[in-house]
Amino acid sequence: MNNNLPKTMKAAVMHGTREISIETLPIPQIDENEVLIKVMAVGICGSDLHYYTKGRIGKYKVEKPFILGHECSGEVVAIGSAVERFRVGDRVAVEPGVTCGHCEACKEGRYNLCPDVQFLATPPVDGAFVQYIKMRQDFVFLIPDSLSYEDAALIEPFSVGIHAATRTKLQPGSTIAIMGMGPVGLMAVAAAKAFGASTIIATDLEPLRLEAAKRMGATHVINIREQDPLNEIKNITENVGVDVAWETAGNPKALQSSLSSIRRGGKLAIVGLPSQSDIPLDVPFIADNEIDIYGIFRYANTYPKGIKFLTSGAIDTKNLVTDRYPLAGTREAMERALNFKNECLKIIVYPNE
Amino acid sequence: MNNNLPKTMKAAVMHGTREISIETLPIPQIDENEVLIKVMAVGICGSDLHYYTKGRIGKYKVEKPFILGHECSGEVVAIGSAVERFRVGDRVAVEPGVTCGHCEACKEGRYNLCPDVQFLATPPVDGAFVQYIKMRQDFVFLIPDSLSYEDAALIEPFSVGIHAATRTKLQPGSTIAIMGMGPVGLMAVAAAKAFGASTIIATDLEPLRLEAAKRMGATHVINIREQDPLNEIKNITENVGVDVAWETAGNPKALQSSLSSIRRGGKLAIVGLPSQSDIPLDVPFIADNEIDIYGIFRYANTYPKGIKFLTSGAIDTKNLVTDRYPLAGTREAMERALNFKNECLKIIVYPNE
Amino acid sequence: MNNNLPKTMKAAVMHGTREISIETLPIPQIDENEVLIKVMAVGICGSDLHYYTKGRIGKYKVEKPFILGHECSGEVVAIGSAVERFRVGDRVAVEPGVTCGHCEACKEGRYNLCPDVQFLATPPVDGAFVQYIKMRQDFVFLIPDSLSYEDAALIEPFSVGIHAATRTKLQPGSTIAIMGMGPVGLMAVAAAKAFGASTIIATDLEPLRLEAAKRMGATHVINIREQDPLNEIKNITENVGVDVAWETAGNPKALQSSLSSIRRGGKLAIVGLPSQSDIPLDVPFIADNEIDIYGIFRYANTYPKGIKFLTSGAIDTKNLVTDRYPLAGTREAMERALNFKNECLKIIVYPNE
Amino acid sequence: MNNNLPKTMKAAVMHGTREISIETLPIPQIDENEVLIKVMAVGICGSDLHYYTKGRIGKYKVEKPFILGHECSGEVVAIGSAVERFRVGDRVAVEPGVTCGHCEACKEGRYNLCPDVQFLATPPVDGAFVQYIKMRQDFVFLIPDSLSYEDAALIEPFSVGIHAATRTKLQPGSTIAIMGMGPVGLMAVAAAKAFGASTIIATDLEPLRLEAAKRMGATHVINIREQDPLNEIKNITENVGVDVAWETAGNPKALQSSLSSIRRGGKLAIVGLPSQSDIPLDVPFIADNEIDIYGIFRYANTYPKGIKFLTSGAIDTKNLVTDRYPLAGTREAMERALNFKNECLKIIVYPNE
Repeated sequence: MNNNLPKTMKAAVMHGTREISIETLPIPQIDENEVLIKVMAVGICGSDLHYYTKGRIGKYKVEKPFILGHECSGEVVAIGSAVERFRVGDRVAVEPGVTCGHCEACKEGRYNLCPDVQFLATPPVDGAFVQYIKMRQDFVFLIPDSLSYEDAALIEPFSVGIHAATRTKLQPGSTIAIMGMGPVGLMAVAAAKAFGASTIIATDLEPLRLEAAKRMGATHVINIREQDPLNEIKNITENVGVDVAWETAGNPKALQSSLSSIRRGGKLAIVGLPSQSDIPLDVPFIADNEIDIYGIFRYANTYPKGIKFLTSGAIDTKNLVTDRYPLAGTREAMERALNFKNECLKIIVYPNE
Repeated sequence: MNNNLPKTMKAAVMHGTREISIETLPIPQIDENEVLIKVMAVGICGSDLHYYTKGRIGKYKVEKPFILGHECSGEVVAIGSAVERFRVGDRVAVEPGVTCGHCEACKEGRYNLCPDVQFLATPPVDGAFVQYIKMRQDFVFLIPDSLSYEDAALIEPFSVGIHAATRTKLQPGSTIAIMGMGPVGLMAVAAAKAFGASTIIATDLEPLRLEAAKRMGATHVINIREQDPLNEIKNITENVGVDVAWETAGNPKALQSSLSSIRRGGKLAIVGLPSQSDIPLDVPFIADNEIDIYGIFRYANTYPKGIKFLTSGAIDTKNLVTDRYPLAGTREAMERALNFKNECLKIIVYPNE
Repeated sequence: MNNNLPKTMKAAVMHGTREISIETLPIPQIDENEVLIKVMAVGICGSDLHYYTKGRIGKYKVEKPFILGHECSGEVVAIGSAVERFRVGDRVAVEPGVTCGHCEACKEGRYNLCPDVQFLATPPVDGAFVQYIKMRQDFVFLIPDSLSYEDAALIEPFSVGIHAATRTKLQPGSTIAIMGMGPVGLMAVAAAKAFGASTIIATDLEPLRLEAAKRMGATHVINIREQDPLNEIKNITENVGVDVAWETAGNPKALQSSLSSIRRGGKLAIVGLPSQSDIPLDVPFIADNEIDIYGIFRYANTYPKGIKFLTSGAIDTKNLVTDRYPLAGTREAMERALNFKNECLKIIVYPNE
Repeated sequence: MNNNLPKTMKAAVMHGTREISIETLPIPQIDENEVLIKVMAVGICGSDLHYYTKGRIGKYKVEKPFILGHECSGEVVAIGSAVERFRVGDRVAVEPGVTCGHCEACKEGRYNLCPDVQFLATPPVDGAFVQYIKMRQDFVFLIPDSLSYEDAALIEPFSVGIHAATRTKLQPGSTIAIMGMGPVGLMAVAAAKAFGASTIIATDLEPLRLEAAKRMGATHVINIREQDPLNEIKNITENVGVDVAWETAGNPKALQSSLSSIRRGGKLAIVGLPSQSDIPLDVPFIADNEIDIYGIFRYANTYPKGIKFLTSGAIDTKNLVTDRYPLAGTREAMERALNFKNECLKIIVYPNE
């Protein structure tokens, strides 16, 4: 353990819906397989906002003072006695879900389905809006000097797109439609580009987001306020439909038009989680056209790829982060994300600045 | 060409909804790549009944005197000049959809999605309720002497189950729920057995069909009139859910319970074609549990397997055919299928008896 | 911890090549995630014989008093404080390789490639020729009452065949040639049967083994002392070749004829480990015919399937075990396996009888 | 048929090894499903040189005056009566193997394994060193105006790399070693780049070819005259080995070092066809490390991708063609390819210039 480490740290603690205060907590104690990380950048995710405003997502309920934030990166400041892969001073990205490694899902390589996962900022597991965090070493990934902490934090939402690409077997040269250009959708565009899709159609209703989609690699954008997405996609694909579609916004109507935009024999990923349970889908279309539909829940085995893709320089993330806050501004950052969502893309909190 | 062949034949011709008359037609002329087949057995399929009563299925409309029937087998009585694989006298099963072989779908091995397929008894292509039929040689399959013409005709509905098993990557040792025990569902049970599923749960509301399901290989049957299928499936699978579910009846409620019965990371095949377009599905369940859903449209590359499975003796089809008619009784057969459907499983027409 | 447990146990300890003595050792101490198992049956494997006679396999060297045996089953007699899946008295099969759960191979579902695996009877990890063994709970599998301890021990070699079937995507209805009818080859025949292969061709040079192959499910056997395997396979497959071949004996010549026996577009699994490094293979044949070749190293995710298959009753193992010994006879059992190998199939040691 | 078409054309006809003369032949007659193409560019392939110098490749023997050349592109000048996809004037790439569309291999989507394929410049089928060629319409592919005829001809060798990438499931972010930088190897580098490989290691012994490899996308090159490829690859991959290796030269030693360079669980494609049958391979390495090996024979379903990749501008082919000849110079072009092979990369013949 590093002797120069402070004994306490600041944390942004949620005490109720829309209540966050900065408190002083002890630095986490690490066990032999863990590393202690000085948190340098944490992205705000839609799920953080949901807990912040509603206090729960489905069965996961905030029942005690709670710390949000799970898209993070930082610097290793201490390592457990069994840790050989890291040294103090290493710059790292953090994969936020620690799995058991022993269940059937883990053993089959689908560890995102582990029933015993401990996921940052999913109650009751505290998250990353803190100055120091501990993490089991196998969910920590070294990043090269050329990758900023901001980009390293983006690997979390990027992972969702990479996982969708893997699940839908996205091939180079494919045509793809991606519905919804929130941060997950924008990073999904980057994933589609990294997988070599040649036609990437992005839809949203905010010009700011569609402009960002172009910078991330979209070859076509459709403002669904102004244009019928299905018509536009049929035009772009010469009436064939896309090979693959991903719905990332959890919007029932977007999901329906995603499905309709797919060519015979094509594939759909359901990335966004809708708030309603029963969404009418065109089942005869699915059967007649032998569509494959893949549910997407988080990701697995994506971090090494994400780091490579962002390091390669092929993905232009530099305009993706629109707002930056210190830890003391966490509440303000959340409110801005809620109240000015058409002005913001990604908001990052810097707990140690 | 065989000189002993008659010049004309009998055919059961549909002249309007619920009107079928026996007529005399010329024997088909074959080209160099075709064989002429004396039709020995033809199964009645739900789609035949649909055309018979409604005159159309979706965009396919009966617009002229039309011949139904597409599940057939028979004896080769003449071969085209380029045919080397068959001889007069060969006993054969007939795969009813002739594809172009040249389009992208055909070249990628998904020829069931060929846009130019010519499918027996799908307007405007006439079907098999006739004494002689011609077929391109690559859709004709030699059957061993030990396989009856009846069983050979069953390979068509069996193919749907085999295709569903392939699409859902059904593994030996799996648990599967199959919803709907019409002829397609019953043969799907046989397919699940041939693929080595160790727990096969069949649902229906007719005791006759559930009894038949047991004979085909179901390890558990659920009468949904008396039991809640989801509860029963949870009990059978020790609260895990099934690895795979297939809905074969086109019933929205059965589709919904199929989906709910699947374990995390499991797979659903949509085999039955519902008559309504918008079926509410639990999309958050699909996403949270990373369910894969596969639309099923007909089949491809299934006949060689189907012949092997039925020839092996592992599938007991002997009580599956409940009713047998000569060609003159085709209309009567259709009416029986419609009016006494709870007494019938498969009905076979014998055009040359 | 069970108070009735003895403090010590007997173990068969190897002190040098061909030297084994029975010694008294303390009962293993379990940690919170482990179970203590009273060992009821242990199979002798070719690798045990190799260590027994040579003292090493490749880089793995016996350097201290060492305990062999890794194919085992038994009864749970104590459980760690975190163990919820087992109770004292449970009958279990033991998967002998404990993996780290944290490396890339483990996370991708290929845990058999884990570089940090602790594998029973692979130096320096002691094996199962003892009365009690401890094992991490996730490598212990409950077996039903109907499955004998003998069969449960056979799941280890069975797993190799199941893994080969999975790697070579063995489809129901396939034709397969399996070369070498040692215990792994015989259980591989059982695996091919469980995966629904319709033609299973087994080769060996011992009539005893070929007879056993028939009982396990081989549809054809070839005595390579009397017949040319390639000619016979071409005859059986009507000159096409087999869809899949597995070489299980580590014999270069058998490997070459396995390869030659495969049809265009078919698949080969290299299951047996040859003792020589450079084996001439017909590379133009591989390229011209687009053969897939899969190296096989142990197995992953096979135990649940193995238990299901053996429990189903479809596999007839009852004549597979030819010799049975108490723990005190371990050395004698090894010598018999070495000196009378044409009289033996599987030899089982019973440490608690 | 276009009335302005000439009745005869020039062709470069091989009359024996190293004998080619320019002759006048009738323009080919097309049938209803064929198009007539004015050949604008034809690449010289290693197989052309092999027939030119030896008169045979394996079982394929030049037994009559014969026309070489199969990597070609051109302009549609006439279309058959059933052709709807093309018009006179269309610029097209030609996939040189016409398959039956009816056999098992064709129906399963592996049409490159069709036993009845008619492949340009594979005896007895004449090739493309002519002014006009006919081709079945489904093996003709429209190219955009921005793609040169030269690039369109390169899609044939490019297809081999694309097929290898598909067979070895090359993932974005992968590390790959490609052995041999002849034209197929160079285009394989381009394919690896198009599939998103992040580390592409190319080996050869000619500086000219290694320079070309860098322009095609290699991130590292190894001159095997000066460096040990295995050592270098271990250095580049931090001692892990590559995810995937392709041997493209048919060189036994390169194949052996390809294999050794692969990480545990990695994949090898055998792309190059060695002239000798028995190549010693390290079989224990294959088994211990669960290597997958894939034979590669030509390609299937690659042309649409190849056109997209080259049109995208991401692949820099402009220095790949080093020598250009008119049809009259075909023999001279072949001799140059043979005698100055270290000065040439791709040589193109222009039959209509």
